[in-house]
Amino acid sequence: MAFEKKDLKKRSKNLSDWYNDVVVKAELADYGPAKGSMVIRPYGFALWERVQEIFNSWIKPYGVENAYFPLLIPMSLMEKEKSHVKGFSPELAVVTHGGGKELAEPLAVRPTSETIMYHMYSKWIKSHRDLPLLINQWNNVVRWELRTYLFLRTAEFLWQEGHTAHATEEEAIKMQTDALAWYRKLYEEHFAMPVVVGIKSEKEKFAGAKTTYSVEALMPDGKALQAGTSHNLGQNFSKAFEISFQDAESNSQHVWQTSWGLSTRSLGGLFLTHGDDQGLLLPPKLAPTQVVILPINNSQSEKVIENILERLISIDVRARVDNREELSLGRKINYWELKGVPLRIEIGDKELADESVTVIRRDTFEKTSLKLDKEFSDHILHLLTEIQDNLFNTAKKFLTENTHEVDSYDQFKEIMKTKRGFIKAYWCEDSECEAKIKSDTKATTRVRELDQKAGNGKCVHCGKPAKFVWHFAQAY
Amino acid sequence: MAFEKKDLKKRSKNLSDWYNDVVVKAELADYGPAKGSMVIRPYGFALWERVQEIFNSWIKPYGVENAYFPLLIPMSLMEKEKSHVKGFSPELAVVTHGGGKELAEPLAVRPTSETIMYHMYSKWIKSHRDLPLLINQWNNVVRWELRTYLFLRTAEFLWQEGHTAHATEEEAIKMQTDALAWYRKLYEEHFAMPVVVGIKSEKEKFAGAKTTYSVEALMPDGKALQAGTSHNLGQNFSKAFEISFQDAESNSQHVWQTSWGLSTRSLGGLFLTHGDDQGLLLPPKLAPTQVVILPINNSQSEKVIENILERLISIDVRARVDNREELSLGRKINYWELKGVPLRIEIGDKELADESVTVIRRDTFEKTSLKLDKEFSDHILHLLTEIQDNLFNTAKKFLTENTHEVDSYDQFKEIMKTKRGFIKAYWCEDSECEAKIKSDTKATTRVRELDQKAGNGKCVHCGKPAKFVWHFAQAY
Repeated sequence: MAFEKKDLKKRSKNLSDWYNDVVVKAELADYGPAKGSMVIRPYGFALWERVQEIFNSWIKPYGVENAYFPLLIPMSLMEKEKSHVKGFSPELAVVTHGGGKELAEPLAVRPTSETIMYHMYSKWIKSHRDLPLLINQWNNVVRWELRTYLFLRTAEFLWQEGHTAHATEEEAIKMQTDALAWYRKLYEEHFAMPVVVGIKSEKEKFAGAKTTYSVEALMPDGKALQAGTSHNLGQNFSKAFEISFQDAESNSQHVWQTSWGLSTRSLGGLFLTHGDDQGLLLPPKLAPTQVVILPINNSQSEKVIENILERLISIDVRARVDNREELSLGRKINYWELKGVPLRIEIGDKELADESVTVIRRDTFEKTSLKLDKEFSDHILHLLTEIQDNLFNTAKKFLTENTHEVDSYDQFKEIMKTKRGFIKAYWCEDSECEAKIKSDTKATTRVRELDQKAGNGKCVHCGKPAKFVWHFAQAY
Repeated sequence: MAFEKKDLKKRSKNLSDWYNDVVVKAELADYGPAKGSMVIRPYGFALWERVQEIFNSWIKPYGVENAYFPLLIPMSLMEKEKSHVKGFSPELAVVTHGGGKELAEPLAVRPTSETIMYHMYSKWIKSHRDLPLLINQWNNVVRWELRTYLFLRTAEFLWQEGHTAHATEEEAIKMQTDALAWYRKLYEEHFAMPVVVGIKSEKEKFAGAKTTYSVEALMPDGKALQAGTSHNLGQNFSKAFEISFQDAESNSQHVWQTSWGLSTRSLGGLFLTHGDDQGLLLPPKLAPTQVVILPINNSQSEKVIENILERLISIDVRARVDNREELSLGRKINYWELKGVPLRIEIGDKELADESVTVIRRDTFEKTSLKLDKEFSDHILHLLTEIQDNLFNTAKKFLTENTHEVDSYDQFKEIMKTKRGFIKAYWCEDSECEAKIKSDTKATTRVRELDQKAGNGKCVHCGKPAKFVWHFAQAY
């Protein structure tokens, strides 16, 4: 609580030092006792609850239902789909003892739930009338990790994982595409983060998938963040888990599947994208508190403040008053700036006399005097919308300015050594060539944008013929 | 989907056979692949989401904030409070390997989160200004168990666990009492389940608590279900974890703590309490679908049905239409009766001609013809309220009729051998006496009701002086 502004590390100096500092000081999260672990504190969790609320409001009307599957997966199930277990086994946490005894078969703490869910799907799906099966889970998963980077890299994280089964591949691909569209919308309209949307390379796709789509965001240090993925699993899992159905003609067929996930990592991307040297900067659509009201003179303004609060709450603005008597106004301002609350209202004697308040934007620090008249609420809503748009436009401008189209490998290497960002370049789609680029530049293929028309290019690295331009970047 | 009513086991014959059958057939839950594990299917999970929504709407305005703490707890933390680890160690699932290596220190999969949360609280709490600290988690916990009784006994379950820290014991006891009141309200007003509310005996209290309060429900087989608990932890954990604060006079003090929890077990109690030979019977306030509309003649009634659906949804009635063409009306009726939907609306040619619908109550099977006039929606709301009340009153009557005041041990034993239920009797509060009663009758002390005035009784078992009457029962 007793936050000293001067203590906060400068974002303008070192992004990652600032990030580690602000996440803890703004009470978003803290380090847990075990290596790689994280505690999500109430202020951080309130943001995750907002994400859940928004995402549920899209998936439920679409017909996706939430459910809950077990945390602990028998190793024999994990091993049923070969490329899947190969991808995940190095990251598993394994329960070997339960109830004081060594287990006959060890249990994996789920790193993702394909195997356990599809084991159940094979019991539940019998007929084409059982399809599509559209299930989502909000849960915790563990992928072994010893170095914590709060939200961005932790052994345990929270996420949603959607898992669907369909009668045809066309339907599955539509689902995969629709899930990707939800992720894009979530980032662009709510997180105020522009994203690049596309398909992953063979090497970068999900272990067990036929294709992986991804939304990729660009962080202020020029590194990309894989921010949500949607997989066409084809029939890989339905064959391994024997998930089949009788079609309308009574023929037995394997189902076509998708899975798609978005995690608390997204919040790390959010905090990195919008802050400044004063602290966080939360987009109004996500901010747990959108407007904080600071009384300069408590006793006199009480009724007016109560009235403002009521007016804002009545139009669904998430507003609150900071009445703490032990803190000076300056300390309170520092506190709420650190917390990234989009709008601050100050009200003192001068304002009272004038029947107005002073409103300060967190993004531009612009001060406006607003009359407490009929239009007051509309002005507040308008300002919140402006802040949301400004954050998005600023991030969009950054993305555009830091996306480099290159056609020589020297240029490629030079950019990755200096300013980084996205590089757009033709690539031959050969995995060895991709590995070579990575070892030279630390950059990996991020995505090939969807709906891209095939061209006649040359691979930026090896010069072989290349049909498509890919986004490359160093990644989180 | 292809449910045959005749297949459902009879509740009137054997409650637990019926329960196991209906939970699977109504698609509330299923057995997971590992021993003791359970899958909560969408219909069951929708009920848990309702519980979350209701409970959050109470705790958040009270000032309790949701957060998320790590799943995996270092064993050294588990061991800090001696009676706590003693209580939980026989039930632990233990991770010994991570990332392909044996861990230097094994990690317990949380059976409850006192230890990991209070480790963090000791970092966060410094001053009386940091108090009270009111945090809740919705998460999964594991307590080793090999035999699954869906919802009622599973190795992993979902729950909420509230954990608070206060400056004084009075505040802590108020919190403990308020949490208990939420549980009582949740059961009585939403689950339509009357509960007995009181304090646990020394032997039955939570491992590490000073006192435990509990709400106890009576199942139709005469066994009690511990349905939610609220603990005064005193300073047991704050001393073990060094959680102290400077009070207003700058003296260092240990905080006073509470924890309180309610789990998916509650849903097991709900299903046991209200069903019948036709299937589930869900109280309207919890039912994911409150009203199902069955068209008898699809083509003609489409517009009328669309209109009814809109009217109901506009007043927040959770209504849906069953349009499935592959099922006969009879099959649909069986299906929705199995699912326990409180009200069914049938609409066919007769009803269309008459501008009315037939409404059938799930609890009494009473049929009413309702005109589609201005009062239609009010009638539906009224019927839903009546069903809610009827379910509660029926359960209340059962509880009253199956609560036996006894003063002889022979009577006690006879009742526990035959009809069971709650027994109210004076008890000396001696643990050995309690153990003897349990070994004779399988009955344990459930609670001593709060606010009970001390009397001058004799212990029903040993005859020694006893001040208070206790509720005894065999328990789930």
